[in-house]
Parts: sequence; structure tokens; C-alpha cells
Amino acid sequence: MDLVQKVLSGDKLALARLITQIENQTERGLEMLDELFPYTGRAHFIGITGSPGAGKSSLVNQLVQQLLIRPDKPDARIAVIAVDPTSPFSGGAVLGDRVRMRDLMTNPRIFIRSMASRGALGGLAHTTSLVAQVLDAAGFETILIETVGAGQTEVDIARLAHTVIVVEAPGMGDDIQAIKAGILEIADILVVNKSDHFGAENTVSALRATLELARLGGKDALHDGRVLANGAQETGEMEDSVWRPQVLQTIATQSSGIDILLDEINRHRAYLTAHHLREQMDNQRMITEFNCLMKDQLYNSWLDKTPKNQIDAMLGEIEKRKISPHRAVKQMLGDVCPCHDKN
Amino acid sequence: MDLVQKVLSGDKLALARLITQIENQTERGLEMLDELFPYTGRAHFIGITGSPGAGKSSLVNQLVQQLLIRPDKPDARIAVIAVDPTSPFSGGAVLGDRVRMRDLMTNPRIFIRSMASRGALGGLAHTTSLVAQVLDAAGFETILIETVGAGQTEVDIARLAHTVIVVEAPGMGDDIQAIKAGILEIADILVVNKSDHFGAENTVSALRATLELARLGGKDALHDGRVLANGAQETGEMEDSVWRPQVLQTIATQSSGIDILLDEINRHRAYLTAHHLREQMDNQRMITEFNCLMKDQLYNSWLDKTPKNQIDAMLGEIEKRKISPHRAVKQMLGDVCPCHDKN
Repeated sequence: MDLVQKVLSGDKLALARLITQIENQTERGLEMLDELFPYTGRAHFIGITGSPGAGKSSLVNQLVQQLLIRPDKPDARIAVIAVDPTSPFSGGAVLGDRVRMRDLMTNPRIFIRSMASRGALGGLAHTTSLVAQVLDAAGFETILIETVGAGQTEVDIARLAHTVIVVEAPGMGDDIQAIKAGILEIADILVVNKSDHFGAENTVSALRATLELARLGGKDALHDGRVLANGAQETGEMEDSVWRPQVLQTIATQSSGIDILLDEINRHRAYLTAHHLREQMDNQRMITEFNCLMKDQLYNSWLDKTPKNQIDAMLGEIEKRKISPHRAVKQMLGDVCPCHDKN
Repeated sequence: MDLVQKVLSGDKLALARLITQIENQTERGLEMLDELFPYTGRAHFIGITGSPGAGKSSLVNQLVQQLLIRPDKPDARIAVIAVDPTSPFSGGAVLGDRVRMRDLMTNPRIFIRSMASRGALGGLAHTTSLVAQVLDAAGFETILIETVGAGQTEVDIARLAHTVIVVEAPGMGDDIQAIKAGILEIADILVVNKSDHFGAENTVSALRATLELARLGGKDALHDGRVLANGAQETGEMEDSVWRPQVLQTIATQSSGIDILLDEINRHRAYLTAHHLREQMDNQRMITEFNCLMKDQLYNSWLDKTPKNQIDAMLGEIEKRKISPHRAVKQMLGDVCPCHDKN
């Protein structure tokens, strides 16, 4: 039985080996991904992001525990991708956390993969997307993707995940300027974790106020792909067709509020399904991937077929400011087919 | 005299009209940009980013005022690009600010351009880069680019600007988790504005501690293009060749601390020049631009030459999960030259 078959049959060791191939971008890895592709499209991707120290890992840990004991889905398989070098899943943990994580790792219904954030962030996001696809094909119904909230990564997660949870901790108080508008725009659910800490109520109020301001300012339109244009006709009310992020409170270390969070995740999942938004998001993501790969492939073909000294000469002219990048491209491609075989 | 000549001769109205053409991405606009390109490469780009409410616009305003009266450069021309819908430069201001801005706008040595953040952020960053090039060619020595600090934009600014200033305001206290590591990594200079407000010292301490942690953790390596490898041999000390961001305090509304900030900007500028880093950054940026434009152009040629129904059929297969985007690209390009003329 080859690696792909083993992965499809639920072999966790085979899965880990295949993912390593994907991470290393081997030719064989990409081929296996192609073979697995027809089995994708069933998993629900949940992104969890937020400031360092907000308690994302503990929350992920709790969500996994709760998902395991849900009576409605006794056989559900859950995967975690930790794209966060400070995550306990990645080894950077306090002891108690690591012990709990180890319990999870030995459970046959759970697969945990830590991805170091080495190399370019853009590249990492791409690899994460591919790994998520493998886990999807391997039959994991729920895939949690934990990343550290810092700029680019948040946006890339939003593109990959069906449901985005932004986790904050008290301490921001009512200091609204500390709340980045950017991170709120990608959130489907907001969680104030450590809500037994001082200032939790202020943080909740501040987040709610910011959400309300964003709503009044028409920021809902920024939730692209999440606003349904024609849903209004079906329900007769526009309100029903737009997802309004809620602010929830949790204390992950005490398993408090996790069930409500899980309910909200399921409510968002049902919302996406009811409005065919999951399909739409997936299609958009796949088309974007196709276009990116197409550009890269065309560019590589062009590189292969163009003499290196010709390219270097042109880049030299650009560096000397003799020709702009825009004009250089035009001149190099000209009216001639760019990758016309020169042999 | 055509628009390009007028722009080169310092005509501000012509400049505004040319920029509008660039913003609208007209063919003529891009051609004029090509004509202006040989005159670029002289300006110093300064990016100013940070949380909403940190007082970025007031700081930019003060920097411009101070630059105008510097005795060493009595004729210096200064441009401001405001990529921030909440900036007073963009009209969203308190009255006092707007009056001060209007004073600046009528000064012949100053050019202010507000760019609405409509459309895709990536696209906006690209347009901002083109507008900055025009201003560079038009002879503005210092170009300040103000953006609201939210994810992607910060990173794109870092790629464009030679010197990146991150502005914060007190209120984060010693709450280190609120400080995004991402924004610190792009900063060449950190400014705590409104430093007469309660908690300023805490914010300064927290930022310094985070910088120190990042330094010990080898995060300097992340300042790509800003770390000089061979400088160590010249000076005999590695320390001299690495830029260490300082945390400065300002009260922009009282013009306090602006001169020290300007000194620090000049120190960074001299550092870049001494280590040939500005050239290196500019070259890197132009090569990236060339590669992006090349990919786009190759992709557009391919689109032109490929029957639409063939592409649609393939995308349909992808959406049905019958073929992966990766394999679809391979199949569509095959061994045949992708844009081989079919006529």
C-alpha cells in the first residue's frame, strides 16, 4: 500500500511522513497532494489567532477536549496545525500544558502538527494551506489552525479558515486605540480569554464598541465572501444574511465558556452552509491558488528559456535607473511570444 | 510643455494631475511613469505607521514644519502621502489640525497627497509605491508616507520606506502582550507620542524590553536588508554594523521631541548611506517589481491566447475537486509553450 492509500486509511505515521514531504516541497509530495485532492472539501477549517499571551493554545487544547466528548459526533477526528513558535504544540510551553498536549497526541482520533515559522511568512501560509488539504483528505472533520497574531499571518489565515476566532486577553481595558481594526475585520468570533482577570469587562465592552462602530461604518462590506447579497430576498431581511461577530468570554485553564464557544462555532458553520458561503470561499481560494501557480509556472518557463545574461543586463539597466521595471518587462516580452522556443 | 516636463520643472498642479492618472492606472499614466523613472532614486522615503489614535498625523505635520526650517537645507522640498482614511490629510480631522494642514498645503515647497484606502490593500500599496516614485522624480527630497497600522499595510510600507517609524501612544502600560511583535520588527525608530499622558514611561519601558528580548532572540536577522554582513570587518565590531531601534518620546501637539526625532531619522539615513543599504533596498524593491510585472504580463498573455471556455472548464473541474490546481496548471501548460500562437 503506498503512502497516499495509507493516509486515506487513517495511518497517522504515514500522514506525518507525507506532511514532511509537503513541507519540504518535494516533487513526490506535490504529486501525492494531487492524488489526495479529490478527497478534500469536507473539513471545517477553524483559524485561531490573537496576541501572544492571550492563551490561544490552552483554548485550542480545550476545544479539542470538548470536541472529543460531544455526544452527537462520537467518532469525529480532529487535527491541530500550530503555526506558532511560542505554542506548547511547538514545544515552547509550560510543563502542565505540555503534559496535557501529550495526552492529546496519543489519542488515535487526534492529529497534531507543529509548523515552525522559519522562512518567509508567505511561504509558510502556503505550506499551511497544503497541510490543511492533506488533513482534510485524511478525513479529519475539524481542523484547528493556531497562529500567532502578527500582521500578514492573520490575513492569510482568514483566507484559509472557514471560521476565524480572534482571542484577546484582558489588559487592553477601554483603551480602544490598542485594538487593531485589522484583526477585528477578519474575526467571525471574538473571545476574551482569561476573563477572570482584572479588566475583562472593559475589554469585552471595548471590543463590542469597536464592532458596533465598524458595523455602523459599513465595515461589514469588508467581510468579503461572508456577506450574502441575495440572501436578503430569501429571508426578507438583510439582517439575517449578514454574520455579526459576537464577543464571548472564556477561562481556558478552567474549561469555562468552552461549550458556548463551541456552540457559536457550530452556529457559524451552519450559517456558512445555509448560505453556500463555505463552497464559495473554497472555490475562491482554489481559483486564487490556480492563478498563483499558473503565474509561477509561466514565469519559470520564461526564466528557463531566456538567457541569463540577457536578464542580468536588463536588471542592471533598471538598477542604473535607465529603464523602469514596467518598460523593461514590455521590452523583454515585446510582441514576440515570451516563451517561444529558441532552439 | 508636456505633463512630464511640467512635473520635472516643479509644477504642483501638473504633478497632481499626473498622480491621478497613476492612481487610475491609465496607459498614459504608466508611460509617463516610465519617462520619469530615470529621475528617481534621490528621495528618502519615511514610513510612519502605528495604532489609530497614536497621533501619527500630528507627528507628520510637526516633522514637515521642522524640515521646512532646518538651516542646513533651506530649499528642501517635502511630500506627504497619507494612506489613511482617518488622517486629517484625508479630510477626517479635528478642526485645528485641518487648519494647520491647510497652511502646509499652500506652501510651494510642500506637496500633500491623500490616498483613500479603497479597493484591495495590496493594490493600494502598489499604487502608493508608484506615487512615491513620481514624487521622487519631481524632486521631493523627503517623502513621508503615513499609513494606519493594520496588518498587511505595515509590511508593505516596510518594503517601500527607507526608514520606518512606528508610533504608539501611552495606554498599553506594561502589558507586553498588547504589543505586536510584528510591528516592532519593521521599526527603525519607535516613538511614544502623547508622552505627557499617564503611563508613557510604562509604554517606553515595555517597548524597550520587547526590543531587548527580540535582540537577544536574534530577531535582528529579521531586519532583512538592514543587517550588514561585511560591515563587521571594516569596523572591527559587529555592533556598529547593525541598526538598533531607539524608543523616543514626543508630544506632537506641543512640538516636543520633534527635533530629536528628526536627528534620529537623519542618523538612520546616514547609517543606510554609509553601509550602502539604501541602494540595496531600492534595487531589491525594483527587482521584485520587475518580477511581479513579468508574472502578470506572462499571465495576461496566456489569458489572451487561451480560449475562455477551456479555462472555465478546467476551473469547473477544480471546483468539483476532480483535479487539483497544481495538476490543472501542469495539464494546461503541458510540454507545449504556454503562449504558443494558436493562429
